[in-house]
Amino acid sequence: MRRLLPLAAALFVVGTAHAAETTLPAAAVKTAEQLRDRALTDDTAYRVLDSLTTEVGPRLAGSPADQRARDWAVAKLKELGFDKVYTEPVSYPLWQRRSEHGAIVAPFAQPLVLTALGYSPGTPAGGLTAEVVKFDSLDALKAADPAQVKGKLVYIGFRMQRHKDGADYRFGSAIRTMGPPLAAAKGAAGFLLRSAGTDADSRTPHAGVTGFRDPRQPAIPAAALSNPDADQLERVLAYGKPVTVRLDLDCGIVGEYTGANVIGEITGRKHPDQVVAIGGHLDSWDPGTGAIDDAAGVAIAMGAAKLIHDLPKRPDRTIRVIAFANEEMGLWGARAYADKHAGEVGKFQLGSESDFGAGPIWRMSASVKPEARGAIAQIAALLAPIGVQYEPGQPGGGGSDLSQMHVRGMAALSLTQDGTHYFDWHHTANDTLDKIVPKELAQNVAVYATFAYLAAQADGDFGSAPGAFTGDGARE
Amino acid sequence: MRRLLPLAAALFVVGTAHAAETTLPAAAVKTAEQLRDRALTDDTAYRVLDSLTTEVGPRLAGSPADQRARDWAVAKLKELGFDKVYTEPVSYPLWQRRSEHGAIVAPFAQPLVLTALGYSPGTPAGGLTAEVVKFDSLDALKAADPAQVKGKLVYIGFRMQRHKDGADYRFGSAIRTMGPPLAAAKGAAGFLLRSAGTDADSRTPHAGVTGFRDPRQPAIPAAALSNPDADQLERVLAYGKPVTVRLDLDCGIVGEYTGANVIGEITGRKHPDQVVAIGGHLDSWDPGTGAIDDAAGVAIAMGAAKLIHDLPKRPDRTIRVIAFANEEMGLWGARAYADKHAGEVGKFQLGSESDFGAGPIWRMSASVKPEARGAIAQIAALLAPIGVQYEPGQPGGGGSDLSQMHVRGMAALSLTQDGTHYFDWHHTANDTLDKIVPKELAQNVAVYATFAYLAAQADGDFGSAPGAFTGDGARE
Repeated sequence: MRRLLPLAAALFVVGTAHAAETTLPAAAVKTAEQLRDRALTDDTAYRVLDSLTTEVGPRLAGSPADQRARDWAVAKLKELGFDKVYTEPVSYPLWQRRSEHGAIVAPFAQPLVLTALGYSPGTPAGGLTAEVVKFDSLDALKAADPAQVKGKLVYIGFRMQRHKDGADYRFGSAIRTMGPPLAAAKGAAGFLLRSAGTDADSRTPHAGVTGFRDPRQPAIPAAALSNPDADQLERVLAYGKPVTVRLDLDCGIVGEYTGANVIGEITGRKHPDQVVAIGGHLDSWDPGTGAIDDAAGVAIAMGAAKLIHDLPKRPDRTIRVIAFANEEMGLWGARAYADKHAGEVGKFQLGSESDFGAGPIWRMSASVKPEARGAIAQIAALLAPIGVQYEPGQPGGGGSDLSQMHVRGMAALSLTQDGTHYFDWHHTANDTLDKIVPKELAQNVAVYATFAYLAAQADGDFGSAPGAFTGDGARE
Repeated sequence: MRRLLPLAAALFVVGTAHAAETTLPAAAVKTAEQLRDRALTDDTAYRVLDSLTTEVGPRLAGSPADQRARDWAVAKLKELGFDKVYTEPVSYPLWQRRSEHGAIVAPFAQPLVLTALGYSPGTPAGGLTAEVVKFDSLDALKAADPAQVKGKLVYIGFRMQRHKDGADYRFGSAIRTMGPPLAAAKGAAGFLLRSAGTDADSRTPHAGVTGFRDPRQPAIPAAALSNPDADQLERVLAYGKPVTVRLDLDCGIVGEYTGANVIGEITGRKHPDQVVAIGGHLDSWDPGTGAIDDAAGVAIAMGAAKLIHDLPKRPDRTIRVIAFANEEMGLWGARAYADKHAGEVGKFQLGSESDFGAGPIWRMSASVKPEARGAIAQIAALLAPIGVQYEPGQPGGGGSDLSQMHVRGMAALSLTQDGTHYFDWHHTANDTLDKIVPKELAQNVAVYATFAYLAAQADGDFGSAPGAFTGDGARE
């Protein structure tokens, strides 16, 4: 996940007026420097990431592995010595993937590698066979006459390109989420897209959620083709003959499930009720083992908190690590968390979640009150030597799940990783441990440990208050 | 496929003694230069490759797509204007893949991405669940006490590295072919290997044949894990607890099948009975569409012959393009061809097949009679400007299928492609059209067109005769 920012809003920072500047004690800055440097050679996060992907592996929300992942997280937080470990329930529709097959039937019979999208219903027994109608964009589908689409298998063929900030995912994910309901509304029989991924040459389709969250909503089977399979389909379409595809998806919403956010705390010595919130999400898509998405985030947060835990003294404020439930199918854990904790938003000193892999963090921005800008600049100065460039004119959204607390008023950072290759593997079978570069992961931990510790030790706050950052332009 | 050469044999060239030097007429050399340059901008081969992978796709020997591939080849050769198009039957055991699943059961339940190996029997209904015993090499398995292996799932974890000449495949393919029978002989319940492939980070297992060719032989279920899945299994094994894996393979030999080699000829004007043999194999493994293995070979040969066909005059000798049946499961088409045509080996002027992808050809060597060395050097001189380095001290084996004619006495070239990335995709779902670089494919066509034309026009022969090259050290 990453921030995509309306530039116009960049300098629009709303904060409750405070007279006093927030400052960072010199001793805290010195300790933070040591923490940062120690983090660069500490392998706790890598071992956590290895453990989660090896011992649990794929952990689709609501699957048996979801429970095992929560058990793992509770045990791991305890093993790392967190002072307090607890869970908070999260309920959501239970979607299951059982099997999936696809094939071009005519004019040239040939299998297609595809994966069902989240909340897709299954196809009828024997599969769904229909003619394909191709669109180049969501806008083209929006503009289409329903007569052109009715009873057809809608295909949208947008190609994502690699960008450091993953910019094209905005388009790819919009097609994946909005395309299926739009096609359904026009009477389509099913929906296919070229995977929202930048691996042009890999037969690993990219899973992801659709907009079919409500089981009462009319829904149609929807799946993503791998990039080479999309190429194949497009080559066959280019012959100019009617192209028929069979989809055979056994999947669907089967009920409701209650999982949980798993939370661990290093309890603050002076202000235990004031928290610095960091984290990641515990669920993953099921084709891979969710190493970059988002065992990395969970591991970075646990690794950073563990370094703070190991200091001679507890920090002044509480460091809270949140492993969110079911981010993938619509921020369910994040929304449950924000609903439950919105009233305490003023107690959230500062927050930032990691959910964009483990490439080096190269950019930092913040949404804080004006009086805390100096402290943020000081934090940034400590991070500059490890490659983080501070953009003082930009807002900070807190990351995918913590964005939900930020919109309620939590002061937040955006800590942007280099995501050039993130969408090669995102939501695919290739999201596995080998994609993690230990040194880059350690740099992430250094950034999180530094900011979390300094936020915990600050003299003063960062401006969290109900609605404090409304309209700051941060996307997440 | 590629040549792997015992150096000691390099200079060992046996030939029937001929007094006269074989020479290349000056006019032929000039035409060959034009052919070569024309080939570099001709897209016939790419269009052929696109057509086969798009219109037929995966074509496992004996599958319904095998028949479609033969129909395609006959039609394509006719469409390209070949003078003579025919088939010759090839019979072999019919092996089918229906479905395949695998999972670590204990201590950490987790799916494994794997693919059944050729001639593997299926597992019993409900799958085969057994403890894994790991070996680092075939030699370690050879040395193992059967008591250590009995009832277990043998796993061998050799990692292939990338080499320009694909050198590590020698080890990887030996484990895949010889490992399963060896494990079976020691009483193992099943066999797994780390894929014989160089894509360390891709969840695409590499199919390939085992040594279980004879249905009367005792055989056990055998499958290849993708590299990241092998990593995962090895990490789990490193916990030091017993590791149980479930294999669920629905596959096996179901009978006998008769397919065919498909052959097209540009008939020689002066010596129609004397042939220059080029080709590739028409079958492919089923996970991918067999673009590099070996639509490329078929396309290079067809593309080269088509350029010769389009000259104002037919060549002096016949250009024969052979699209071999079932190379993948043990050179069945090649052996049938050699059995049928061994008696005419003296009529085979020179031969070379392409079956190592479509990377640029960078090396050439030949097994010919001494009196034809000068002609070979002249051919090499024409290929040097397009990157081909001639190694006069090395033998030439003719390529995977034509090696069977070479061992009977056909004079042969080895034309080695750059295979640095060949084993990233070989026998996987990722063997698709996007892996072909059109300019590199065209360079291959230029090489084949040049040598085939010059061999057809030569004054004299290259020494083909029964047993002429026995012991030359050429592997294929």
